[in-house]
Amino acid sequence: MSRQAEIQRAALDRASLHEAYAEGRFSPVDLVDEIHRRIAAESDRRIWLHLAPLEEARRQAEALRQQYAQREKPALYGLPYGLKDNIHVAGLPTTAACSALRDAARESATVVRRLDAAGAIFIGKQNLDQFATGLVGIRNPEGYCRNAFNPDYIPGGSSSGSAVAVAKGHVTFSIGSDTGGSGRVPAALNNIVGFKPTPGLVSNAGFLCNNRTFDVPPVLALTVPDARVVLDVIAGYDPLDPFSRQPPDDRDFLAPPRFRYAVPREKQLTFFGDAHAEVRYLAALDNLRAIGGVPVEIDLAPFLAANAVIFDSPFIAERALTYRQVIESHPEAIHPAVRDAILNARRFSAEETFQCLYRLAGLRQAAHALLRETAEVLALPTAGTIYCCAEVEANPVELNANLGRYTYFANPLHLCAVSIPTGLRPDGLPFGLSLIAAPFRETMLIQLGHRLHTVIGGTLGDGKQESGNSR
Amino acid sequence: MSRQAEIQRAALDRASLHEAYAEGRFSPVDLVDEIHRRIAAESDRRIWLHLAPLEEARRQAEALRQQYAQREKPALYGLPYGLKDNIHVAGLPTTAACSALRDAARESATVVRRLDAAGAIFIGKQNLDQFATGLVGIRNPEGYCRNAFNPDYIPGGSSSGSAVAVAKGHVTFSIGSDTGGSGRVPAALNNIVGFKPTPGLVSNAGFLCNNRTFDVPPVLALTVPDARVVLDVIAGYDPLDPFSRQPPDDRDFLAPPRFRYAVPREKQLTFFGDAHAEVRYLAALDNLRAIGGVPVEIDLAPFLAANAVIFDSPFIAERALTYRQVIESHPEAIHPAVRDAILNARRFSAEETFQCLYRLAGLRQAAHALLRETAEVLALPTAGTIYCCAEVEANPVELNANLGRYTYFANPLHLCAVSIPTGLRPDGLPFGLSLIAAPFRETMLIQLGHRLHTVIGGTLGDGKQESGNSR
Repeated sequence: MSRQAEIQRAALDRASLHEAYAEGRFSPVDLVDEIHRRIAAESDRRIWLHLAPLEEARRQAEALRQQYAQREKPALYGLPYGLKDNIHVAGLPTTAACSALRDAARESATVVRRLDAAGAIFIGKQNLDQFATGLVGIRNPEGYCRNAFNPDYIPGGSSSGSAVAVAKGHVTFSIGSDTGGSGRVPAALNNIVGFKPTPGLVSNAGFLCNNRTFDVPPVLALTVPDARVVLDVIAGYDPLDPFSRQPPDDRDFLAPPRFRYAVPREKQLTFFGDAHAEVRYLAALDNLRAIGGVPVEIDLAPFLAANAVIFDSPFIAERALTYRQVIESHPEAIHPAVRDAILNARRFSAEETFQCLYRLAGLRQAAHALLRETAEVLALPTAGTIYCCAEVEANPVELNANLGRYTYFANPLHLCAVSIPTGLRPDGLPFGLSLIAAPFRETMLIQLGHRLHTVIGGTLGDGKQESGNSR
Repeated sequence: MSRQAEIQRAALDRASLHEAYAEGRFSPVDLVDEIHRRIAAESDRRIWLHLAPLEEARRQAEALRQQYAQREKPALYGLPYGLKDNIHVAGLPTTAACSALRDAARESATVVRRLDAAGAIFIGKQNLDQFATGLVGIRNPEGYCRNAFNPDYIPGGSSSGSAVAVAKGHVTFSIGSDTGGSGRVPAALNNIVGFKPTPGLVSNAGFLCNNRTFDVPPVLALTVPDARVVLDVIAGYDPLDPFSRQPPDDRDFLAPPRFRYAVPREKQLTFFGDAHAEVRYLAALDNLRAIGGVPVEIDLAPFLAANAVIFDSPFIAERALTYRQVIESHPEAIHPAVRDAILNARRFSAEETFQCLYRLAGLRQAAHALLRETAEVLALPTAGTIYCCAEVEANPVELNANLGRYTYFANPLHLCAVSIPTGLRPDGLPFGLSLIAAPFRETMLIQLGHRLHTVIGGTLGDGKQESGNSR
């Protein structure tokens, strides 16, 4: 196969790229060219909001090659990545899908500095639900991207462009943001892995946050091992983030060969009438049993109760702290559903805020105790269904909330979670299973998630690229 | 010496009492009688707000004797204790020094259940600044107790009765509450030990809290080892307190033979014109050097900045959640300074609350980093001075705030602290030195505090009782 043909069919997972680099089949500079070719050939023009100029990315790739020609290559050597456009890169505006936000950032986010130091190559900034406020991916008044499998369907959000770019082979991984499911939901809806660590494990410094108290940057990747390597690079205490945490010593808690997975009581489980999703969920649970899982039924109530803090609660004031100014100065540039959700913050007092903090702290205790006593992981649909763009346009608030039923609670409750692609439904759309665990159980989730993805067949995104393993 | 003469001169520290019990010199029932005799003979009638009936305490003492006649006695066997009257005991009202609060509590606080199970004998409920809002001890509209050393002077607060009762030999220890210094300040002003653990280590369940997010029950005792034994009994995770924490594994960090103690820059140190206090502070630092301490000067700014959250901040809303109802329904029963401080909560919004949470989280990081890098403990005056009751009556808000300069920040910053009595000033009044450490460094503080108290001579409260050791 010619170099050209080889690179055009290349999957971008880390193993494939590092093998190709090691065997000299193509170089990071070749890959940068190829990525720009793929993006130029892409019919969906709303995945990327900003691309780093080709010459700049080529220069970075060439500098990496020279720097590491004779030295051990760093973990993310030559891996192209994208950033959701609510993450600062020095010198670029951070729009959060609002064109009124156009000031250039002075400093790059901590995660960006860590990725660059580990040899990753920045490709550009990706589309999102405006102000990362949505799980649908279509709340950008200036245009949104489409699901990687069917353009009639929503990409999921808010890290919409971040997920679609990975699924379509534009980058090896993306960094999004996750408040109530914004990393996991679009990952599930585009057949990729979405890994959301415990709040505090990865720095939010340099992010436009929705909830500084519990937002956490997720990794969107083609495989679980890729997500793990990226997470290892970006995780770690950061004095620039006041909610950064030192993980306790049990972070390396490993997955037992046999493990218990918790499922909700039947009446707590809904797929909003979507039979395909229900079938895929049950099949994914069969896969969990095949890798050693033992089911336990639990009461999902303390988890579902925590869902309430994401929108209609005093916690919305945290979004107002980030976005009130631009909403008030540029009302015309704001999506109505986003504006209404955030300005709702006005009505909450300090007393109501503390009451909500107390309630949430109690739910956190109850949820942690329940997990400790019953199961290693909670196994839930990442999203109970998927919608057409037109359906969501017609009913933007209710359908958005439906998508958060199984994801909203994880960050407020300080849990970690991974969404694993579980294969396509009969209608050709993806479905993701979420494994959710107690704080700082990332290592265990990575092991279980990798076992699950492997037993299911380990498809990579839209499946149109060839991984090194399948060549 | 007759049994009668013996018990009348007995100091109530644990070692003395357990020795007397072991040698059969007197029994827990004898001691209960003696305590009621001492309280009846006491000229200050405002130390105790409620006494458990003599017959009940005698019954409890006798039951203990029988239960443990042939078995190993529990840690607090036969030790009499008091509770600040903002702590629930089932069947008793919890007045918080407000006579409008008269409903009987249905459940005892978690700490009370733990103390009872460890063999301690409940003597009664003690006076306090109303709603534990004050450091002076004289904010009870129905009457306050006096300093154990000079009745013209304030007892310190808000755990005023709790401290005076220990100093005067009415009980072995008291449990108070500490938001901004309410355990440490009255301990210092009455020549006893005040140990304030890290917030979350001891349950607040069953307390009328000022700040559920960082209040912590302190132990007021005659000696550091006594405080340690009580702390060991009451510490531990409690699912009834949503802010209860599992301490990290480094809780048993020990005191090195040589240790660094941090002192503030000269201009950050004020004694409000009180030369006696300054002399005692410098002498106490000499004592610290004598036990292996090496001084380091630090910038106290991140600590002092956290002082601001105690009163004029959105955190006051937490007090309003506990007390607004009674303030509004019984305005005539409320101390004006207390009412004004708490109703100030009205003016804070949810957005201001989160801004304050962010600022505090940042200060916490900065303070912990400073401690980690510079010193094992911070060594500060517990209170920079002491006032006459009349002075405080004339200037209730400013003088109260002066007393909090070196204590307010500890709980908001999640630190632990112990106030050690350092001997009397030339005017016969006590002075306390606070050792303040990083979260969950209780074991180290106990070791250093005990070394310091020992080298200073280890006086017990008002010094009018004889300890087992000095007989």
